[in-house]
Amino acid sequence: MSRDIYLESTPLDEALRKWLEKLEFEGVSKPLPGETVRVIDSLGRVTAGAVIAKISSPFYHSSAMDGYAVKFPETFGASERTPKRLSIGAQALPVDTGDPIPDGFNAVIMIEDVQIRKSQQSPVDSRSGDSQDAAQTTSSMQEAEYIEIIAPATPWQHVRVIGEDIVATELIVPENHVIRPVDIGALLAGGHTEVQVRVRPRIVIVPTGTEIVEPGSHLKKGDIIEYNSRILSGLVTEWGGDPVRFGIVPDNLEELKKSILHAVDAGDIVVINAGSSAGSEDYTAAAIRELGEVILHGVGIKPGKPVILGWVRGKPVLGIPGYPVSAYITFTLFVRPLIYKLQGIEFKEPDTLKAMISRQVASTPGQEEFVRIKVGKVGDQYIATPISRGAGVLMSLVRADGFIRIPAMSEGIGSGTEVQVELLRSKNDIENTIVCIGSHDNALDLLANILKKRYPKFSLSSAHVGSMGGLVALKRGEAHIAGTHLLDEETGEYNVAFIQRLLPDRKILLMNLVYREQGLLVLKGNPKNIWGFQDLTRNDVIFVNRQAGAGTRLLTDKFLRELGINPNGVKGYEREEYTHMGVASAVLTGVADTGLAILASARALNLDFIPVAKERYDLAMPQEYLDNEMIRCLLAVIREDREFKEIVMELGGYDISDMGTVIYKN
Amino acid sequence: MSRDIYLESTPLDEALRKWLEKLEFEGVSKPLPGETVRVIDSLGRVTAGAVIAKISSPFYHSSAMDGYAVKFPETFGASERTPKRLSIGAQALPVDTGDPIPDGFNAVIMIEDVQIRKSQQSPVDSRSGDSQDAAQTTSSMQEAEYIEIIAPATPWQHVRVIGEDIVATELIVPENHVIRPVDIGALLAGGHTEVQVRVRPRIVIVPTGTEIVEPGSHLKKGDIIEYNSRILSGLVTEWGGDPVRFGIVPDNLEELKKSILHAVDAGDIVVINAGSSAGSEDYTAAAIRELGEVILHGVGIKPGKPVILGWVRGKPVLGIPGYPVSAYITFTLFVRPLIYKLQGIEFKEPDTLKAMISRQVASTPGQEEFVRIKVGKVGDQYIATPISRGAGVLMSLVRADGFIRIPAMSEGIGSGTEVQVELLRSKNDIENTIVCIGSHDNALDLLANILKKRYPKFSLSSAHVGSMGGLVALKRGEAHIAGTHLLDEETGEYNVAFIQRLLPDRKILLMNLVYREQGLLVLKGNPKNIWGFQDLTRNDVIFVNRQAGAGTRLLTDKFLRELGINPNGVKGYEREEYTHMGVASAVLTGVADTGLAILASARALNLDFIPVAKERYDLAMPQEYLDNEMIRCLLAVIREDREFKEIVMELGGYDISDMGTVIYKN
Repeated sequence: MSRDIYLESTPLDEALRKWLEKLEFEGVSKPLPGETVRVIDSLGRVTAGAVIAKISSPFYHSSAMDGYAVKFPETFGASERTPKRLSIGAQALPVDTGDPIPDGFNAVIMIEDVQIRKSQQSPVDSRSGDSQDAAQTTSSMQEAEYIEIIAPATPWQHVRVIGEDIVATELIVPENHVIRPVDIGALLAGGHTEVQVRVRPRIVIVPTGTEIVEPGSHLKKGDIIEYNSRILSGLVTEWGGDPVRFGIVPDNLEELKKSILHAVDAGDIVVINAGSSAGSEDYTAAAIRELGEVILHGVGIKPGKPVILGWVRGKPVLGIPGYPVSAYITFTLFVRPLIYKLQGIEFKEPDTLKAMISRQVASTPGQEEFVRIKVGKVGDQYIATPISRGAGVLMSLVRADGFIRIPAMSEGIGSGTEVQVELLRSKNDIENTIVCIGSHDNALDLLANILKKRYPKFSLSSAHVGSMGGLVALKRGEAHIAGTHLLDEETGEYNVAFIQRLLPDRKILLMNLVYREQGLLVLKGNPKNIWGFQDLTRNDVIFVNRQAGAGTRLLTDKFLRELGINPNGVKGYEREEYTHMGVASAVLTGVADTGLAILASARALNLDFIPVAKERYDLAMPQEYLDNEMIRCLLAVIREDREFKEIVMELGGYDISDMGTVIYKN
Repeated sequence: MSRDIYLESTPLDEALRKWLEKLEFEGVSKPLPGETVRVIDSLGRVTAGAVIAKISSPFYHSSAMDGYAVKFPETFGASERTPKRLSIGAQALPVDTGDPIPDGFNAVIMIEDVQIRKSQQSPVDSRSGDSQDAAQTTSSMQEAEYIEIIAPATPWQHVRVIGEDIVATELIVPENHVIRPVDIGALLAGGHTEVQVRVRPRIVIVPTGTEIVEPGSHLKKGDIIEYNSRILSGLVTEWGGDPVRFGIVPDNLEELKKSILHAVDAGDIVVINAGSSAGSEDYTAAAIRELGEVILHGVGIKPGKPVILGWVRGKPVLGIPGYPVSAYITFTLFVRPLIYKLQGIEFKEPDTLKAMISRQVASTPGQEEFVRIKVGKVGDQYIATPISRGAGVLMSLVRADGFIRIPAMSEGIGSGTEVQVELLRSKNDIENTIVCIGSHDNALDLLANILKKRYPKFSLSSAHVGSMGGLVALKRGEAHIAGTHLLDEETGEYNVAFIQRLLPDRKILLMNLVYREQGLLVLKGNPKNIWGFQDLTRNDVIFVNRQAGAGTRLLTDKFLRELGINPNGVKGYEREEYTHMGVASAVLTGVADTGLAILASARALNLDFIPVAKERYDLAMPQEYLDNEMIRCLLAVIREDREFKEIVMELGGYDISDMGTVIYKN
């Protein structure tokens, strides 16, 4: 078997056209047949035919009010001056709302508009409250009773005539209609207890790979937890289909072929994940080719290039790449339209909005790129910030608010450009999100969580670009809040001088969040004997740095300067991480021997910590946002929330004695 | 027991405030506790706590590419001019994407960037396709193999380091988060197989009423099919709760009390439907009062006034009115917020849009009114048209695109006013809806259905205001299409003269839909011996008319004029129906003895038909809309769709020989 190193790179629109034409040509993009379900179980299902009413609703003339049924000609002439009496039982029959109108009667007078009289008795006003029940229980057949009315009735007044709601033969819901709660009511009212709905499209998902293991397995190096099929199954469910997940198939051509044959019998669409690339153990294309036809292998998108569109025994069979973001994007592009077609409904295009992109995004020409972004609304402007672009970074999808597409011919997008965002969250959620850009601190994650717990409406989204980046974001109107710990070497004071310099014209409030310890992280037991920055010049020590503009980077550079160390002599100085946890992770995993970070990150990954400095970490925010409800809620959590203080202290390395204190206000 | 005729009429905002304060005070609006579910079953559930990663993903350094793992210092010095050889097996180990990086190795070189060489052999280019497999199968241990590289590797290149996606201890999802497909993937990747999610709020729905019967029962006069509980159950499901529907309880105070006690044990919220009014058999308020507390009975809204907010044994117990629209509105207003609070999430406010109201809506001051409306987008303007306002007309909800609220102090809204619409359908659906206003014909319903079947994206919505009303709607830019059959007595021609007179400045296309027969409808067997308009003057004959501006009304008036009949002498002349089916229904149910309508409506309700005229029914449309995709699809159905023609012919009374023919174009 050959190893195809190079895939095709068919442009996306051409690939989609080819695919949809094939589906059309083969006749598999038509709606599936109907099946009978109980109306009360039909919520969310799609009608397989128009449903017309079998009976009218109401199916008899019924009273629309509590009162008395009368024959309207007998009420003629009634007035305030000449009240008219109608004998109860003969000329006026008591009816409650919904009661049938007795034969020969054709109007209802509301109970509020009658007075009940008994012959030989003093009048009793029905409005006094207990007259009617009293009458019902105490009257004898001998004693005649009347209602007295002071206005004539019009024909059919206060009567719900037959078919007022639904006329038999009337259309209740058309074909290809998604059944809602009110439709269920109308179908039942129209005499239906069962309804024909489309069979749900069955999508068989076949996870493949010798290295793939079920979640919960005892893990050994080289194992990959199988979760893609569960993401795809969830998507199928959300789109109205019925996901069927097969067992894991090892990388073996014959076994894969057996599984595909089984799958095409079991479902309407088959998805193989993964083995769709061109590696030595990527058998998907070969299996599809041997069983049927590979229509296309490789689409010019990023991520998601190594997708396979195939055909086996009259069924669409797709090879979906293994990286989770690639799997998500290709599945959405090529499978979603078909699932909707099989149901006979249109899928709802995602909401979009126009946003300004906050940083430049470079892109490789020749591939249409799908960039995950966070979106925030700061002032009147939606701001889009790109997040990690690795196809293997599932968390980039978890955190994303939407996608932007960079066209195949483009080399990227400049900062400040307006972009069209395909939303993954609602606009409303986005507008209720506080955008925090700047330095990272673990306490921010806790703050986000407590905010959501106390005020489910609001979210805190943080992007980590370092302290300087945060202040610049405030200046540009791209963030509500910036986390910052910038030491001014001249004054020994944190943040204030930087704010005055960078944001001279803005009214800023600077509030303390925490004091925290910074130190060198090393493996448990400190095997390399690292005790300070002077050790970074050693040949056997690899350092991991923070990015330029980070407060921690400034601190690093200050120490090196004070010790007269040339950064060129520090191995790993050029390897930059964007968060404390990134640094901790590099140390834990042996990518580096040490790096500067906060105690909380050492604790989280069970590393040793060599303290080197205590610093103040503040939140800066333009005062114009202080009236904003979400900002007020956030400040309330910082100032008053006991649980927040407790969990920050549990992290370790924090002094919260000034939490919520205003440090500076201009 | 007293019969309270008059309820309170607490303003809505005050009622809501009182209700939410009570829930808060009693501590029942806090999120419910968590329960453990499998992650793979957690789609759509709400997290009961923050979830942090137990393991990193990947949890070992793994290759990001197919290629060779190397030690980067060993690659130093490689260049095009001085390629470097690394021995396979010792210095370079083959790895596929996802494979662990062997201990001591720290970079990957992509397969595309190496050439494989064998000592004593001529070089084989790996790009030729089969080199590697050939190498794997034919090489012997004795024969040394090398990769040749022409550039050095940078540290950790093409390596997914531990935690690249998720770092152990990192927050995956916060508390109060609705789990999406991607979250399921991230939870599994982070080492979780189970997750704590909120118990679903259980809402017990108790249908009451001696006259209430289960759907599918053999129906007798006075029976009411119970469907409200199924609508409410569907809403509960959509809002994330767990509906529990009890059996029907007859109108009996003791039985109702027993059922309520059972219900408060079984659920978090109890809803009694109905018996919430003040009729002689409305026991709900009394039952709640005897078991607990009625907080409020009667809210100033229409429909929905007779709602009861109550409290029994620490649980909220509501009495919801029996009319379906009232039930829907009060349930949404008073139960939905609580269901969301119990889950710890915010409910999504419905989308809204600003629209121009096409007709005047009068409203009774003192009640906040919820008016169901249809919305269409004609040109650049959203047009809102109010539909039936009866609380008992469930179809008004089925057909509605949204609500508008008329404030309690208002007497109504003038035609042309801008209103705020709370949407029940998506904006996108609304924009894909063809607005047809004008005369009604049963063939329009079939057209709507076939359009949806052929083009699921598009809908046809028709409002019946008569032929004149339709042309006026076109003039005002409120409709895309108008159905019209207006006979010009001078010329004997249909429609054209009216279009020229009413729409002198517009470019209009007039297309024939059908020719159809109009006739007098009478009960089967014609018991009253009605054979023509002259019979309408008889004392024992009650007529049902169509509204002014309807083509059928013009036809009626023409016949009466020709016969010299004074409309005052026609009993029922003033009773107006808006559709042919409305006329047919009035005749079938005995509200009237006869009325003028089309044959299809007689057929639908099995009435006899006395033909009096054949007329042309056309569709008029401004030519500016002809380029619109949805209009093109509609015209394609009218002109070419075989199934449409067939089902129109099945209705009876139609001549389709000119269907789709252009009658007039200016």
